[in-house]
Amino acid sequence: MTTIPRQVRVVEVGPRDGLQNEKTIIPTAAKLRFIELLNTAGFPEIEVTSFVSPKAIPQLADAAEVFPAVAQQPGTRYSVLVPNERGMARAVAAGVAAIAVFTAASESFTRANINMTIAESIAAFRPVVATARAAGMHVRGYISTAFGCPYEGAVAPAQVVRVAAELLALGVDELSIGDTIGVATPNQVTDLVPLLAEQAGLDRLALHFHDTRGTALANVLAALHLGVSTFDSAAGGVGGCPYAPGAAGNLATEDLLYMLHGMGIQTGIDLAAVVRASSYLATIVQRPLTSKYLQAAISARQTDIP
Amino acid sequence: MTTIPRQVRVVEVGPRDGLQNEKTIIPTAAKLRFIELLNTAGFPEIEVTSFVSPKAIPQLADAAEVFPAVAQQPGTRYSVLVPNERGMARAVAAGVAAIAVFTAASESFTRANINMTIAESIAAFRPVVATARAAGMHVRGYISTAFGCPYEGAVAPAQVVRVAAELLALGVDELSIGDTIGVATPNQVTDLVPLLAEQAGLDRLALHFHDTRGTALANVLAALHLGVSTFDSAAGGVGGCPYAPGAAGNLATEDLLYMLHGMGIQTGIDLAAVVRASSYLATIVQRPLTSKYLQAAISARQTDIP
Repeated sequence: MTTIPRQVRVVEVGPRDGLQNEKTIIPTAAKLRFIELLNTAGFPEIEVTSFVSPKAIPQLADAAEVFPAVAQQPGTRYSVLVPNERGMARAVAAGVAAIAVFTAASESFTRANINMTIAESIAAFRPVVATARAAGMHVRGYISTAFGCPYEGAVAPAQVVRVAAELLALGVDELSIGDTIGVATPNQVTDLVPLLAEQAGLDRLALHFHDTRGTALANVLAALHLGVSTFDSAAGGVGGCPYAPGAAGNLATEDLLYMLHGMGIQTGIDLAAVVRASSYLATIVQRPLTSKYLQAAISARQTDIP
Repeated sequence: MTTIPRQVRVVEVGPRDGLQNEKTIIPTAAKLRFIELLNTAGFPEIEVTSFVSPKAIPQLADAAEVFPAVAQQPGTRYSVLVPNERGMARAVAAGVAAIAVFTAASESFTRANINMTIAESIAAFRPVVATARAAGMHVRGYISTAFGCPYEGAVAPAQVVRVAAELLALGVDELSIGDTIGVATPNQVTDLVPLLAEQAGLDRLALHFHDTRGTALANVLAALHLGVSTFDSAAGGVGGCPYAPGAAGNLATEDLLYMLHGMGIQTGIDLAAVVRASSYLATIVQRPLTSKYLQAAISARQTDIP
């Protein structure tokens, strides 16, 4: 056990990983307003959108309109997901300076999600990452289903390590290790993270938990004890889980910040500003979001009960 | 850090702490059916009801009917809340063999909740606990607002320790330390629990977390690392929070069991049976319950998506 980090980097993925699971198309202006409100919170990084095929994810078809319209704040990195060279060309045209590529630790999931083998997905990223590095862009590599797969069940840590090695060899700056279907428990974090930390270094490791079974914050706590200091989350817990409609998806940024700040860990992020952004988004998606902190904050506002 | 316990005792408080916050009166038969379903899960203890004044909590006015009608299973303790000598007389008449008394760590809360000082509440329990002990009953002592008070804010660990000492002096067998408004973060657990463990012994210590801000399982994880092996929870997360209507209340039993079992910790409790009990209860209270595991399980059932 190392000492818990005194400072944590929270990467806000709501505009991309959150919104991409929303069925009803959200107007571009509403996305921009949501990001504008997030901008007031002071995140070190916001994942703005994805330059995937508009056919694959119609919700993010407006990526080329959204990205340039964001009023970029100093101190915040604005990143986007890029699936292939075509997406990369669109991202470059939109003025993007930080990208993320994505594969998974499970062959079945990669096949179902992007219709490639893991090796094919890595090969497809090779020219994308090369272009990005040549342009001095920051590159993040996502590994989905690192703690469990909806098709294969358990995923061996060795398989995650193998995929991580290939992404690192491509030249990614950072790995984000995802519990895509929200099945992880803290012992899995304790089993996997030291292997990845040895490989990539703690500074290049982000964890991306989903809260589908309520364990996300416990997993964050386990990871903090291992020295991890970057976590992904989505304002309001927006997004749900595509593999369990109606269930919770991304770890909610509010819940994460509440715990970190309560533990005396600095993030530089204004929790109240995140609540305002999520409260706005809830009016757009027209349903309550899953963040428990948000629900408590809204309730307190409505009732004046302490 | 001690080794994480290999076995954990989960005390199901749904029929009492969960239902007491439900505004619409639930028919006695439905409560009994809920408890019957919980009985199939194999809990070591179920808190069945409360012999408080029917005027104070109309929802539990049927305590004297509910308790004797429960088909008690071998290996399960069936306990009830008792506020005073009058409640104790009713509990004895109903055939109760295990009771819980309750006070708080905050004067303002105790005043608002039961219109007594903490000292007065302890004095009121003295004859109750004496009667219970003379009859060979198991006695649990609850300390509410141990991690924060809706009126006073922060609660000093020393204040909890002081109240714990008084309850232990009365002769309670076990302390249950409650985060009544769901504000605790893991550092608070790490600050408070060792003091109480030294005082009462780890074996006599239960933790009772509410999940109002999503931190309950992280708090459980912190407590496991300190050697705590008894946790309270409510099936489905039933109950909500009286201080934040619409927000989550009790830690959901399903979420707790999912994490514990995932960590290889034995509870002897059948998670699927808890889901059946909660699914039934959701039809009675006519709204989705807050357990994230339950929501994912219901979603998986409806969609056949893995």
